[in-house]
Amino acid sequence: MPDRVRIFDTTLRDGEQTPGVSLTVEEKVEIAMKLDEFGVDTIEAGFPVASEGEFEAVKMIASEELEAEICGLARCVKGDIDAAIDADVDCVHVFIATSDIHLKYKLEMSREEALERAVEGVEYASDHGVTVEFSAEDATRTDWDYLLEVYKATVEAGADRVNVPDTVGVMTPPEMYRLTAEVVDAVNVPVSVHCHNDFGMAVANSLAAVEAGAEQVHVTVNGIGERAGNASLEQVVMALKALYDIELGVRTEMLVELSRLVERLTGVVVPPNTPIVGENAFAHESGIHSHGVIKKAETYEPIRPEDVGHKRRIVLGKHAGRHAIKKKLEEMRIEVTEEQLDEIVRRVKELGDKGKRVTEDDLEAIARDVVGEVPESEAAVKLEEIAVMTGNKFTPTASVRVYLDGEEHEAASTGVGPVDAAIRALRKAIEELGIDVELKEYRLEAITGGTDALAEVTVRLEDENGNVATARGAAEDIVMASVKAFVRGVNRLACRRGD
Amino acid sequence: MPDRVRIFDTTLRDGEQTPGVSLTVEEKVEIAMKLDEFGVDTIEAGFPVASEGEFEAVKMIASEELEAEICGLARCVKGDIDAAIDADVDCVHVFIATSDIHLKYKLEMSREEALERAVEGVEYASDHGVTVEFSAEDATRTDWDYLLEVYKATVEAGADRVNVPDTVGVMTPPEMYRLTAEVVDAVNVPVSVHCHNDFGMAVANSLAAVEAGAEQVHVTVNGIGERAGNASLEQVVMALKALYDIELGVRTEMLVELSRLVERLTGVVVPPNTPIVGENAFAHESGIHSHGVIKKAETYEPIRPEDVGHKRRIVLGKHAGRHAIKKKLEEMRIEVTEEQLDEIVRRVKELGDKGKRVTEDDLEAIARDVVGEVPESEAAVKLEEIAVMTGNKFTPTASVRVYLDGEEHEAASTGVGPVDAAIRALRKAIEELGIDVELKEYRLEAITGGTDALAEVTVRLEDENGNVATARGAAEDIVMASVKAFVRGVNRLACRRGD
Repeated sequence: MPDRVRIFDTTLRDGEQTPGVSLTVEEKVEIAMKLDEFGVDTIEAGFPVASEGEFEAVKMIASEELEAEICGLARCVKGDIDAAIDADVDCVHVFIATSDIHLKYKLEMSREEALERAVEGVEYASDHGVTVEFSAEDATRTDWDYLLEVYKATVEAGADRVNVPDTVGVMTPPEMYRLTAEVVDAVNVPVSVHCHNDFGMAVANSLAAVEAGAEQVHVTVNGIGERAGNASLEQVVMALKALYDIELGVRTEMLVELSRLVERLTGVVVPPNTPIVGENAFAHESGIHSHGVIKKAETYEPIRPEDVGHKRRIVLGKHAGRHAIKKKLEEMRIEVTEEQLDEIVRRVKELGDKGKRVTEDDLEAIARDVVGEVPESEAAVKLEEIAVMTGNKFTPTASVRVYLDGEEHEAASTGVGPVDAAIRALRKAIEELGIDVELKEYRLEAITGGTDALAEVTVRLEDENGNVATARGAAEDIVMASVKAFVRGVNRLACRRGD
Repeated sequence: MPDRVRIFDTTLRDGEQTPGVSLTVEEKVEIAMKLDEFGVDTIEAGFPVASEGEFEAVKMIASEELEAEICGLARCVKGDIDAAIDADVDCVHVFIATSDIHLKYKLEMSREEALERAVEGVEYASDHGVTVEFSAEDATRTDWDYLLEVYKATVEAGADRVNVPDTVGVMTPPEMYRLTAEVVDAVNVPVSVHCHNDFGMAVANSLAAVEAGAEQVHVTVNGIGERAGNASLEQVVMALKALYDIELGVRTEMLVELSRLVERLTGVVVPPNTPIVGENAFAHESGIHSHGVIKKAETYEPIRPEDVGHKRRIVLGKHAGRHAIKKKLEEMRIEVTEEQLDEIVRRVKELGDKGKRVTEDDLEAIARDVVGEVPESEAAVKLEEIAVMTGNKFTPTASVRVYLDGEEHEAASTGVGPVDAAIRALRKAIEELGIDVELKEYRLEAITGGTDALAEVTVRLEDENGNVATARGAAEDIVMASVKAFVRGVNRLACRRGD
């Protein structure tokens, strides 16, 4: 196995080819800067000939003087290679398909013609003094003897690296090991692999290739890319470090930040059950797991969350055990007896059995009820009345009336939409009560089904002292769900001020 | 390698332990019925001792007389096993942790004590006449000699199957192969594996185990489960069938349906780049890929979408090539000359370069503009006026005025929220114009950022003749985005009726 593996990031090329994803030049530059800070070895910035904007983006990234090698994709066609060279890349990644199915149906070319074109492309790029990486597209479905012939010829023609793409993701790790070993054996330049995830094996196939001697792996942040995407940068990097102890020279503690940036700019969501960076990667709900993690994190965590910029979370629910609930109550500074704890655990499970997601709000309400304290809501801001209007002929408008300790305030505001107007009016009204909060984040979960489906809103608020509160609201009415979440958040902050 | 591999589905047990997921009894039964129809061999229905609702759910599923074996989880504790037996399961899955870290910090038990408990648990369950599957939790971090001793002793005590859980997902395929081979060698009962996905290798590790002789694999739909989840049913099943040609006796054409059901009921989203079942699994945007797929699907598709109940999609965007755009225009029945096509391609790429998602609407608008036709909107329903109100003291209400060919209609409606009221009012008004449409699906993308972020709505409408139209709308005002999408969809349908 190699001591050092190069990370070739193709988030901005194959990743951006994700159907539905389009990045602006500025967004591509932002991601490139972050990838460079993280420490990838190569940034494949795009396919310069694809469009004017794509050319501009690659050229702009190449001009940023980043540490990473900047690469541009090109078919074995002069116009493509010229576009990459004109964009001032350090490396041109030239490719041509070599599998019979691609040759016959897509390229309408013989094996001999493809080989000739590959050699010409590599020579042409190489003559311009750039680093040349050559890919035989659909390599894994290519006749192996012919494939090795192509790689040998392109290395002779000046290729500095050869890449083995599993274009449609059909390899298994043992097969990937065998093929990579043959390629490593046949050429005297570093071998790279580019694995697609059609059967969920992109990461494992990449690692198998490294075991067979590959010195470079193509990855994308969040595993985005054509169809099921590419091998995920986060997973490959952490597996190489944690399971193979291979040096990469990257700042793993930036992984979550990098993942969130790409999620936000591409719009491709990262579900909670995503390895390394997903919301649940270090979250524990079931009693047995929470209990174990509270005692010793390594019982159920293979790596430390802080090593990837993540946080551990203990989540409530019907599988939650006494240990997790007790810990949460301690965090809330609610003292309970053993009997009270039993009753709280029973009620939490009951709520979970009804299919409800048990929030910390719910736990607090249950606990205060069992313990017999006055619930938070009675001591805080009360929404008496709210009315919100919108339409195509007038500006969205909201009016509100709120109470605090018997004092009443009214306010009205316009906004870009009904939710915006409602929140602005609420902020005005409570400001008059002496509470100044800022809406740091607003999130509405996707709604699927009908227009009568439940809307779930989460808000994060911050007051002038830097106190932060998160709150959720759910209702069939999107506006009212947002209002509920906001009022709850305000009351949380008000409660803390009372401490 | 075994001829036949059993699929042990633990969506309802490990899958439901996904932090934040809680299913009602009815939802668990619905998923169990669907899994049975699909053809899994075992349904692990839950952990009966965890809560009353969990017990009820397992018992209800066991009473459905499904083809699949119904299994319940139990620690090596009498109370747990009794609960499973009382729930009338066919199989009890008993487990105890065996790794030193779990023994020391979680169980506070010696290796000898754990072995004794394991044997007692298996014997106790076995005495009740049920099938017994034994798991050594955290097997892959357990001392291998001790692990084999535990498996041998539990088989002697009556275990019908032994399961090897990679509890924290730290294995690589070659290691999983070696460990499984040793276990297969040591016992004379079927060996199963249960792989977690912390480094993205759950599927590959499961397949490596099968290569080493494992006859059963634990999976979950959409790969949900603790932390990064379990091996995904869809990926394991399709890899076994397509890459290993192993008989499973399942209806693969139900995979997308199964995935969507679990996504809807658990709320754990399936991102577009998910293998097999994701929205993009058979979607193609880039010019090279679209071109290939249009000529011959196998160039860029490892399996046929219909084999898993999916559909192929050609998506527009800045990477789109002439072939894809031409095909889309043909579908829209818009005839263009080669020069017009060049101009349309140029404008599509220009839009993509701006970071915009290029919708079919956009393409249609561009194409009609280039070709010089009257845009669809001039020939159809026009929204003259809409006003929508909501608040905490009154029922959400909307009024609308629409035109069709100079004819005017007004309508008003209440709803559960402002969007619902608006759509209801619109439906009423256009009904009076003789257009009867049903809203088959409403989807609002998640909104992150502030209350002034762009809301994106997609609707799917069906008219009384079964014509279907999908349309999107975007605006900072959630209500207006929904209204735009709906009116666009109605106009699409109206257009088709005019053909």
